Parts: sequence; C-alpha cells; structure tokens
Amino acid sequence: MNGPDLIHGGALDRVKALYPLAPQPWLDLSTGINPHPYPAPPLLPHSFAHLPTTSENDACRQAIAQYYGAPVASLMLVPGTEILIRLLPSLLEVQTVALARPTYGDHLSCWQTAGANVVEMADPAELAGKVDVIVVCNPNNPDGRIWPPEILEDCRARQAARQGWLIVDEAYADIAPSLSLAARGGAAGLIVLRSFGKFFGLAGLRLGALIAPQALLREAQKRFGVWPVSGPALHVGTQAVADTDWIAEARHRLETSRLALDEALSGAGVTTLGGTSLFRYVQVPDAHALWQALAEQGIYMRRFSWSRHHLRIGLPADDAGRQRLSAALAVSL
Amino acid sequence: MNGPDLIHGGALDRVKALYPLAPQPWLDLSTGINPHPYPAPPLLPHSFAHLPTTSENDACRQAIAQYYGAPVASLMLVPGTEILIRLLPSLLEVQTVALARPTYGDHLSCWQTAGANVVEMADPAELAGKVDVIVVCNPNNPDGRIWPPEILEDCRARQAARQGWLIVDEAYADIAPSLSLAARGGAAGLIVLRSFGKFFGLAGLRLGALIAPQALLREAQKRFGVWPVSGPALHVGTQAVADTDWIAEARHRLETSRLALDEALSGAGVTTLGGTSLFRYVQVPDAHALWQALAEQGIYMRRFSWSRHHLRIGLPADDAGRQRLSAALAVSL
Repeated sequence: MNGPDLIHGGALDRVKALYPLAPQPWLDLSTGINPHPYPAPPLLPHSFAHLPTTSENDACRQAIAQYYGAPVASLMLVPGTEILIRLLPSLLEVQTVALARPTYGDHLSCWQTAGANVVEMADPAELAGKVDVIVVCNPNNPDGRIWPPEILEDCRARQAARQGWLIVDEAYADIAPSLSLAARGGAAGLIVLRSFGKFFGLAGLRLGALIAPQALLREAQKRFGVWPVSGPALHVGTQAVADTDWIAEARHRLETSRLALDEALSGAGVTTLGGTSLFRYVQVPDAHALWQALAEQGIYMRRFSWSRHHLRIGLPADDAGRQRLSAALAVSL
Repeated sequence: MNGPDLIHGGALDRVKALYPLAPQPWLDLSTGINPHPYPAPPLLPHSFAHLPTTSENDACRQAIAQYYGAPVASLMLVPGTEILIRLLPSLLEVQTVALARPTYGDHLSCWQTAGANVVEMADPAELAGKVDVIVVCNPNNPDGRIWPPEILEDCRARQAARQGWLIVDEAYADIAPSLSLAARGGAAGLIVLRSFGKFFGLAGLRLGALIAPQALLREAQKRFGVWPVSGPALHVGTQAVADTDWIAEARHRLETSRLALDEALSGAGVTTLGGTSLFRYVQVPDAHALWQALAEQGIYMRRFSWSRHHLRIGLPADDAGRQRLSAALAVSL
C-alpha cells in the first residue's frame, strides 16, 4: 500500500489491485455514502438524447430547493460539489481563509492552490469578521463536529459586514436538516454547498447545489454554462428529493445502522470519537497498521495523512458486513 | 417570440411556451444532434451508488482515445465540452485571440468575457504565429467549413513557436474522422475538444474530452477534480465508442438523411450553403420571418442574431419529419 493518492476514499479499484490476495468481495467503508441507495427505476438512455432543457433543470432545482428549504432563486444545480469547491477560489476575491482542522481536505488544497493565506484551526468561526473567507463543514467531515446554526448566522453577518464570505459545506446535513443554513440562502456573505449523492446513496450521478446570493450565482452560471447537469442526474434527483417517505425511512435506518456499528466498534475495543450517521470517526493506537491489516482482509477504510491515530469508517450495509468488520477487528487489534 | 436567449438551439421547452397553438408534437431541428441515438440498454441507478472509480474513468478514457485515434495520455474526460470551453480562458495566459466568423458563439463570448482582444475573421489560421490563441471548429458550425488537417498542423506549429495555442473544436468530427487532429494529441500548442453527445445522439449524458499536452491536462484536472464525469456517461460512453458496426452504420445513415434533407430543401426552393451530415446551413430571404412561420407550425430551427438570411436545420429523424418540413416550407416561403 501507499502513495498519498491512496489516502482519499472511493478508490476501491486501486486498493484492490494492491491487495490481490484479499478475500472477495471487498467491504468498502471508505466513503460516507448511504449503503442503501434510493431505489430509482431503470433509466432509458435514449431519453437523454436531447440536451437537458431549462424546464428539466428548473423542475429539479425547484424540487431540490424545496427539499433543502432554500429560496429557489438562491440555488443552482452543479455536477457534484467537487468541481464547485475547486471553482470557488476563482469566483471570490480572497486573500485570507480560515478553515477547520480537521476537515474535508479539498477545501484546504483548493485555497492553497489559489494562493490564499490559509489558517487551519479548531473553530474558524472565531475569526468571524477578520478573514475574507471562513469555511466549515456542518456536520464536519471526518469528526462530526456541529456548529449551531445561530453561531454560523452570527459568523455570516460579521463576514458580510467586511464583504467577506462564510462557506458552509453541508454535504452531510441531510441527516440533520435543522443544522442547515439553506433557508438563509441569498443572504449576504453566505455560500452553502449541498451534495445529493451521499445521503441518497447515488454518488456516481454527480449532482450538487450551490446556494448563494444571485450575483455570485450569475458568475458561477457563466462558468458552468447552460447544461451543467446530466439528464440522468436531473431525472433521478427530481424524483428522489420529493420522496418524503423514503427520506424519513432512510434517516431512521441510517441512525439504526450507526448505533449497531458503534456497538460493534465498542465490542472490538475501538473508541468512537464522533462522526455522523453516515460515517464514524474513531481513534486507534496505530491507524495505518490497522488500515493495512483490514485491507489484507478485504476491508477498505478511510485513513488520513495527518494522523496515525484516526480512521473514518462508513456504514456496512447489513449485519453480515458488521460481523465481518467485527471479526476482522478482533484479529487485527 | 424573442429575446437573445432564444437564439440558442436546444430550448424546445421555451419555444413551445411561446407558441402554445402550434401543432403537436414539435419537430425539433434546432440542434445538430443525431436523431437516432445510440441504443444503449437501460441503466440501473443503483449501479451508480459509488463514486466513479479511476478504473471506470480510465476504461472510458482508453476506449474514447482509441475511437478518436488520440494518444491516451493526451486525453481527459469532461462532463460535456460546454464547461470546458468556458474554463479554457482561465487555463491559458492569453491576450489576443482569432476565431472564425461565423462559428459556435460560446467561443467568442468566453474569450470576450475573459477580457481577451478577439478578432473574428473568415480564416483565423491566417494569423498563425501572430496571436496567442486561434480557435476553429472543424468542421465548422454552422457553415460546415473544413480546414484540412495539414493546414491546421502548420498553424499549430507556428502557434507553438510563439508559445501560443491552436484550439480545434471537433464537436462534429465524428462524421469525418480524417479531419481530426486527435492523433497529434500532446503536440505543443494543440488543444482538441471532442463531444460525445452529438454523433451518438445522447447529448443529455454530458460527456466530452480534452486532448492537450500533459501540463495543461494537469491544470485542467485540478479544476475538474477526481470525479468529473458521471457513472451513466462513463458506462454508456465506454460501450458506444467501441461499437464499430453502429458507428459505421450511423455515418452512413446520417449521410443518407442529409441527402434526403437537401433534396427536400432544394424542392422547397431553399438554398443550402453548407453544413455537415448532422445539420444544414441555408440561405433564405428573411430568416427571422421564416423561423417564426415554421415555429407557428411546430417546427423549431436554429436562427442567428448576426444574420437575417441564414438558418441552421438539423436532420429530421424520418420521412414523416422531412415531409412535414417540406409542407411547412411550401406554405411559408
């Protein structure tokens, strides 16, 4: 195993190639994606013969805005938030950035690449009004830390007062919608990023949303163009976010799975520090050794370049997966 | 009818709303998309639960590079060429740009938005070695003009000698692969853009390719990230470009349809100036009046802000469509 490129999750193909003797099939716990995807019906490719129309884009946008509780005029759809995160530095004039440590690594690397002066700290909201951009993931990835919305609203107001920005990456907020600032969409200084694929378990579709003041949306639109999101993503997205029964059941099932996973981890002597109901953040004596021992048993977790004591563990889909994890931990710790 | 936003093709929903009394169904000839899409089997959404892996991306990349005849190391996949065209000005340091007039409008608007000094001319290759960027569409949209590859190769060499760029948008080159510079992929100064959706008739999937020197690919990769293209696009794309029988048949069928359309246009007294086998470029006495008369009959064509005498007409899917077009032209001219 190795190479910093293998630190990221979601690279099962490469991990497989590095551990050819591992038992099949692999148990991929490297991401925070719902293991029970939204059960959308089959898609007919020829229904995507034409370019997505404005009506189709708007229908999805309306449905997604309603689901997030955001004013529809403050929301635009994007082909996944990854490309959006990488685009933000080119949309904002920024010299100083504060972001949480630890947090999703792309935020740090994008602002650094753009030449910004970046400070990492436990609570970047402490610098409200003192830097150009504050970035938080709420809930935070990987540790699950939560910023109460009223704290962030205060932070946004102070950022707005200096013509600065608060960027809230709500990639995991579907499981705790009361945390979301989406309803404040359009407020000065506020940028909210939302991700469709994690909670709905369909990350391969590439669908996300930018919630921001209209002047910024106009600039973003110029970069993304008229047809940024694919027909399949619009089609499935429109349907999924309106399925309130499935959404309620999914939250419940994830929480149940999360409790069962915590029990399995605790039973194996692993300390859970936090996380969300889509992933757990744990502390172990030697994270890289454990990562490797589990990989040899066909279990793929998320490790970190910046810590030898932490791992992030996604939810197994079922009892069999949890039992396999427990058994592997028992012989590896 | 009106608004410059309705000049673009592919906005059938909005045109429909403006002509509510037009006979249904509409005949949409506003784009240059193959009316007989590649017959891909149904897609199961849950197979897109995970993020697209590097292997899946590479498999599609390999297949597409082989189909275009490009060195695989010189090619990266993107979610449609529109976003790529809009991104290029931020990847290249450019002050002067020469592009063809007429040509696909996004090229002009993107470089102008980026603040470049843009000159439009019949043959921008005449400025080889004298401007930072030369842009041609080959074959050209909308008039079908063709630049022989050896002329463009000479242009590329002269651009490279001044550290400049030749951008060749080959969105319609699938029908005439001998025109393509893809095999020169990686050569200094050469950027080739390819579009999957037009020839394969699946524009809603959002799939395209950038062929360029590796240093530029690395910069583009930073902007697009690790998972730029959706699972459905990778899945269908990999399959379609390897289906050599379908590709050969499609070229033949498009050429047959093109001949039949030209005959219908000629029978109606419309002069065809050029185009490709995916669209025709015609001259008429009053293009905007004819556009409107046809819209009232439920037929949607491409018109242009810069000409009152030209229209672009996509291929009807069948005899019935051609006959409807002939009949509508007969009463409108």
